[in-house]
Amino acid sequence: MSKPEYNLIYHAGIPGRAEFIRLYFEATSTPYIDSAREVGQECVAPYSRDGFEHCDKNPTPFAPPVLVHDDLVISQTPNILLYLSGRLGALDLGDGAASSKTATLNDPSTFHHHALLLTILDLNNEAHDTHHPVDVMLYYEDQKDAAVAKAKAFREGRVPKFFKWAEGNITKWDSGFLTKEASYADLALFQVVDGLLYAFPKLIARIKGDYPKVFALHERVKSSPKISAYLASDRHQAFNEYGVFRHYPELDEA
Amino acid sequence: MSKPEYNLIYHAGIPGRAEFIRLYFEATSTPYIDSAREVGQECVAPYSRDGFEHCDKNPTPFAPPVLVHDDLVISQTPNILLYLSGRLGALDLGDGAASSKTATLNDPSTFHHHALLLTILDLNNEAHDTHHPVDVMLYYEDQKDAAVAKAKAFREGRVPKFFKWAEGNITKWDSGFLTKEASYADLALFQVVDGLLYAFPKLIARIKGDYPKVFALHERVKSSPKISAYLASDRHQAFNEYGVFRHYPELDEA
Repeated sequence: MSKPEYNLIYHAGIPGRAEFIRLYFEATSTPYIDSAREVGQECVAPYSRDGFEHCDKNPTPFAPPVLVHDDLVISQTPNILLYLSGRLGALDLGDGAASSKTATLNDPSTFHHHALLLTILDLNNEAHDTHHPVDVMLYYEDQKDAAVAKAKAFREGRVPKFFKWAEGNITKWDSGFLTKEASYADLALFQVVDGLLYAFPKLIARIKGDYPKVFALHERVKSSPKISAYLASDRHQAFNEYGVFRHYPELDEA
Repeated sequence: MSKPEYNLIYHAGIPGRAEFIRLYFEATSTPYIDSAREVGQECVAPYSRDGFEHCDKNPTPFAPPVLVHDDLVISQTPNILLYLSGRLGALDLGDGAASSKTATLNDPSTFHHHALLLTILDLNNEAHDTHHPVDVMLYYEDQKDAAVAKAKAFREGRVPKFFKWAEGNITKWDSGFLTKEASYADLALFQVVDGLLYAFPKLIARIKGDYPKVFALHERVKSSPKISAYLASDRHQAFNEYGVFRHYPELDEA
């Protein structure tokens, strides 16, 4: 019997929240099915209602991303990464920042990495909400005034607060980002910084110098052998104006 | 040597996100220090900057709640609940919905409960954002127009979508809410429903009949012996207009 494959279910056409999971598969050289790419948007529908395959053994997901692995069907980005961290092999950035251990609930670093991840995903959600502050079902154009106000608060208050927090934690060899135990949190910080570079290029150009470790981490993950090969491959999708990170010049600085 | 105590660090004066953790301690009869109550708001400051106690072994938290347990200092509500689920005793609702097992990363139910929890916390965050859609640092009054628009979308779109999802998962004995393995997710759903009853009484009065299982779960947790004793005690704080759930009549229905 062959080993069950990891099947990642997500919306087609955007990196979105699934990208945190793709990066983890790629950095650990784990084979996976990217159903958004291989099947298309119709891959999502079966998991958003009762009666999906294996629904007798799993709660119905609220929203993608969804991971299907054998009989297990689970949702929520941090939850999927937590599950994988108990199973995948070494996360290898090619320069010594690698981890070959699998996570357990007895290891403090599991909870350090999960806290870092959850905080980075909060920043990811706030970046999304800059263009959809009122209603996810409305077009951006129909909530643009609130978006402009929210983006200002995001640029002036939230991004500096998150970056300052990240910068401080990169100094910590034992339990922060990019420790001797590289983790999904390092990949997540890379992804959000990459998204901000796309969506808020003027803001980032101005503040980049204040957070040298954050941008060094971004560069280090980006240029690591496995991630750089992934980014250059046709498995990788560019940011666009349908995803979490959107480049609307009026939301960036003047 | 005495067993290290669980020390919960949070803002004083509101139930807030710490309430999910308090409910878990209470439902499992676990002793804990509630520093917001015992020390006051000053309990928060030492953990929001580098140089806090044990900071050499732990990342700096981005925001409360923070759990201090011996040398471990961790943040993020779902992360703290995950940590506790690997350690606390039986979650006993007094009517057979109890679990005596501790969570591990090899057990599918760990990821089922965590996905349910994360989704309920998303609803909690969206409830918060109805009164702060633009900027967490601004007063409600200064973002009221956007708040009114966001609350409408929340009432008409988001709450029904989340409740429909929750209702469907309560039907699932094996892997949904209130299964033979009661979990922190059941307590979390209780807490968010309780908050919505406070903040959006007119909305809930109108739609309650559509989600009988959601409100039966709320009642069942509320009337369970340990939780009802907690709710009647001076350890419990009522909702108010400084927390996640605020009763602003103009955000509820006409």
